[in-house]
Amino acid sequence: MTKQNSGHCSVQDGVPNSSPHREAGEELLDKQQLQERMSLIGRKILVMSGKGGVGKSTVAVNLAVTLAMHGHRVGLLDVDIHGPSVPKLLGLGRETIHTSDGAVLPVEYTVDGHNIHVMSIGFLLENPDNAVIWRGPVKMGAIKQFLKDVSWGALDYLIIDSPPGTGDEPLSVCQLINGLDGAVIVTTPQELALVDVRKSVTFCRQLRLPVLGVIENMSGLLCPHCGERIDVFSSGGGEKMAGDMGVPFLGRIPIDPEIVKSGDEERPYMYYYPKTVTAQRFDKIVDRIAGNESSVASGVKNKNTV
Amino acid sequence: MTKQNSGHCSVQDGVPNSSPHREAGEELLDKQQLQERMSLIGRKILVMSGKGGVGKSTVAVNLAVTLAMHGHRVGLLDVDIHGPSVPKLLGLGRETIHTSDGAVLPVEYTVDGHNIHVMSIGFLLENPDNAVIWRGPVKMGAIKQFLKDVSWGALDYLIIDSPPGTGDEPLSVCQLINGLDGAVIVTTPQELALVDVRKSVTFCRQLRLPVLGVIENMSGLLCPHCGERIDVFSSGGGEKMAGDMGVPFLGRIPIDPEIVKSGDEERPYMYYYPKTVTAQRFDKIVDRIAGNESSVASGVKNKNTV
Repeated sequence: MTKQNSGHCSVQDGVPNSSPHREAGEELLDKQQLQERMSLIGRKILVMSGKGGVGKSTVAVNLAVTLAMHGHRVGLLDVDIHGPSVPKLLGLGRETIHTSDGAVLPVEYTVDGHNIHVMSIGFLLENPDNAVIWRGPVKMGAIKQFLKDVSWGALDYLIIDSPPGTGDEPLSVCQLINGLDGAVIVTTPQELALVDVRKSVTFCRQLRLPVLGVIENMSGLLCPHCGERIDVFSSGGGEKMAGDMGVPFLGRIPIDPEIVKSGDEERPYMYYYPKTVTAQRFDKIVDRIAGNESSVASGVKNKNTV
Repeated sequence: MTKQNSGHCSVQDGVPNSSPHREAGEELLDKQQLQERMSLIGRKILVMSGKGGVGKSTVAVNLAVTLAMHGHRVGLLDVDIHGPSVPKLLGLGRETIHTSDGAVLPVEYTVDGHNIHVMSIGFLLENPDNAVIWRGPVKMGAIKQFLKDVSWGALDYLIIDSPPGTGDEPLSVCQLINGLDGAVIVTTPQELALVDVRKSVTFCRQLRLPVLGVIENMSGLLCPHCGERIDVFSSGGGEKMAGDMGVPFLGRIPIDPEIVKSGDEERPYMYYYPKTVTAQRFDKIVDRIAGNESSVASGVKNKNTV
């Protein structure tokens, strides 16, 4: 895993690390190392969506942060090669990669004294404006390295933020990780998004990956001036789609300009604004994913007025 | 180009049509056929974005529709393989592909008596929920067929709607089309989107593709209840980014729940709502792209109050 330093960006159509030309023994060693790393991790959850811009990275980051706030040991892997958002959302944009004893050290993000282990292609770019112009097989090689060569250590959760669609990145994750626990699918409520998100459900079925549930994000906005509700992207579509396709529905999150602002300010919303109605609602969703009913933002219930 | 009929979806890691094992003569014939098709088309414009969900397909479809309303002969190619939105946005979701004399006939969409020639992977899916789980090289093969085997005929414009990111699809378009005129880059105003969109500018520079300009979409919302402005995704970021990176700025489009609704109702906004403030603003942007000052929605100027 080397730092990209080729001027503006890198165009690679070449052979990935997992080329058939490699020694069979080396391949086997790779596989063993990957399995060993993954065996130390409790639950591995893929956050995906058929549609871009639905808040998938925001969900992945805040899911990781909330689980850490609950006291879990958490890793967060960003496999969005062309548009890595995780470093920016956590204010880690200037971090770079270090190695120790042949392993790549994850970048640490601390919440409430708990370290989240973070890895992203963003840490390998000399300039955040650089474009990673890689074709699929090279991306598969990079994702394999992220899983195999990073010293994740013992974790309760590994949250994997995938780019939109049903292409190389989520496919690579599914093929590389034995015992992936399931996928959280994020959507917005309008039909145009749902067309794509239904494809994500089909993708999971085809690859026999359990769907942990659907989150309907950007579901209505309360006008900060008059308090009236505005259905910017319609509402209820994600819940209906989950019902139609027979997968669990995890909950709705309203549009909240504060979430956008917290992202731009590089401060994860759930850590900096845990008492808001939006945070309460997200916290319940995390509880459903984690399979428990305790809440980081306790005491404020049944306030989901949007 | 065959219809997908393999149950739910298709996983292909295989060799694309452009495999090095094909006869050199056949490759040359392919290239000639591709060049011949493209030589009949005036301007070829790629609509792209580093970030998903910024309204890229909505911009591409409405750009094509507006150009057709101006009397131009227009083609619209959707190269988003995993999440094709063009058929849905034009109400063509039930259309399938037909061939004649060995060529694939584009699906026709008529506005004001002008036919837009449309092609999308969506027309090849038996069920719109099917996921196309293809790796990069197979996608390149499909895009090549879309360009080479479709009887586009003589056109003034070919608008190409690319999926988000700087991966296989936009790269394939750039490598396959000699004389691509340039890229229209769509963004939303928040910094999280701009990080990715700057990568699109870098991508264009690397591939020597002119940037025709940046559109700032979802730039502010007027509350339909009280009329006050809400900066849901911040505002002004796209314009500032364009200035910082030295590329033209084409204009801002506000968030308009009517655009979302028109998409879900499968009616292109510019055709059905040409007199709205949003439509006026979009029309000016199309004029800038086309390099003229005439307007399909004439008479209402300087009303850009958002």
